[in-house]
Amino acid sequence: MTKRFKITIAYDGTNFAGFQTQPKQRTVQSVLERAVNKMSKEDEYITVFGSGRTDAGVHALGQVVHFDFPHEMTAENMLNALNSLLPLDCVVVKSEIVPDTFHARYTTHGKRYLYRVSQSHFVDPFKRNYTGHYKYPVDIEKIKAALPDVVGTHDFSSFVASGSQTKNHVRTIYDATVRRDESQNEIIFEFAGNGFLYNQVRIMVAVLLEIGRGKRPIHDFLRLYEVKDRSQARETAPASGLYLKEVYYD
Amino acid sequence: MTKRFKITIAYDGTNFAGFQTQPKQRTVQSVLERAVNKMSKEDEYITVFGSGRTDAGVHALGQVVHFDFPHEMTAENMLNALNSLLPLDCVVVKSEIVPDTFHARYTTHGKRYLYRVSQSHFVDPFKRNYTGHYKYPVDIEKIKAALPDVVGTHDFSSFVASGSQTKNHVRTIYDATVRRDESQNEIIFEFAGNGFLYNQVRIMVAVLLEIGRGKRPIHDFLRLYEVKDRSQARETAPASGLYLKEVYYD
Repeated sequence: MTKRFKITIAYDGTNFAGFQTQPKQRTVQSVLERAVNKMSKEDEYITVFGSGRTDAGVHALGQVVHFDFPHEMTAENMLNALNSLLPLDCVVVKSEIVPDTFHARYTTHGKRYLYRVSQSHFVDPFKRNYTGHYKYPVDIEKIKAALPDVVGTHDFSSFVASGSQTKNHVRTIYDATVRRDESQNEIIFEFAGNGFLYNQVRIMVAVLLEIGRGKRPIHDFLRLYEVKDRSQARETAPASGLYLKEVYYD
Repeated sequence: MTKRFKITIAYDGTNFAGFQTQPKQRTVQSVLERAVNKMSKEDEYITVFGSGRTDAGVHALGQVVHFDFPHEMTAENMLNALNSLLPLDCVVVKSEIVPDTFHARYTTHGKRYLYRVSQSHFVDPFKRNYTGHYKYPVDIEKIKAALPDVVGTHDFSSFVASGSQTKNHVRTIYDATVRRDESQNEIIFEFAGNGFLYNQVRIMVAVLLEIGRGKRPIHDFLRLYEVKDRSQARETAPASGLYLKEVYYD
């Protein structure tokens, strides 16, 4: 009777200490597991598996998790039940029953991230938790000229946070775009790839903004791939601007 | 050398216990006074006067305050100095030096409020603090037909929270509009008037939504003006959707 549920969720990361369960911290995984286990009468604890972690303050529009639920329930009832139990900063947007071979983390083909940069002179109080902030003038054409260097398979050793324990830093980026949202005075980046290293998107955004500001040559990514030196990429754009937009499966 | 400053501010009301100073609470007035007094070497405490209170959770796009500052400073320097001292959920958008006859509260001719209602089925986690939420279908044409009853001079006794100590409940509304923001799936109300009673906008919005849903007759405002009975207006729309948009002076 146990069935595997694939659940797509959106969350405001502001008040979460990231996705993954940590002692004494409010995390997305812990509030999900509390809701799921509240619905089950079984003694066995139901674990929720995410497609990957997100850091404290990072948001999701389409994070994917799975878990095995030991009672009869339709996908739609699961969506409604979870949304009645979850806190308001985390919502289920889609619920599906999937084969046991599905695994949120191990069967993914990639992810898409979005990054919002506010260009206001002072930080907009309504955006402080939902955008990065860069007040300097940015030539978006320079960033557009740099993005073809980002796409493809590269060694991203210069773009991985020092805390990462991953040895292999080669990743493939399928798609990288930038656009200006004039009405919001924002720059919006999107990156889709087969996987991302710890802080990779936030470091890439910081480098791209410096390219747009004219502080780095347009093709500085090619140099950074060569030097494999995190310190030369310097800045990390803040967590508040980052959104996990989509997780890809077959 | 003392000059009066008129300061227009925007704030995210989520983490404030309203505008007005209260013991042991974080309020807009208290963070403003802390910033202003940090800039002054005088022993005398500088008090900041607002155009009026906003409740806990209510936002401002254009709240106005004034204070007397005993040191030489340009309006522009005041704006920059305050923004470097204020927390990120409160920002100065405009700074002016005004005559001593200006008073943020006593010389105002009226105010404009905006109210955002999200119509999503479940609460959008990114809007939970920034909109009211009403999932039921609303016929906006019915609300448009009711709005002419709102405009004008009326006794709003049915639309004042029971906690109010104001005796005179007659107010004049200059302008009342509603529109649907399709891209955001929101209904946006705006009300301009010579003054508003405690919770008046939030109670009016709740009644207008019930008119739009077909739970009240279109001209129920006319009946509510007559009965002068708060209990018949029933609901109060949540603070999270309300924005003080503008304060009017000569």
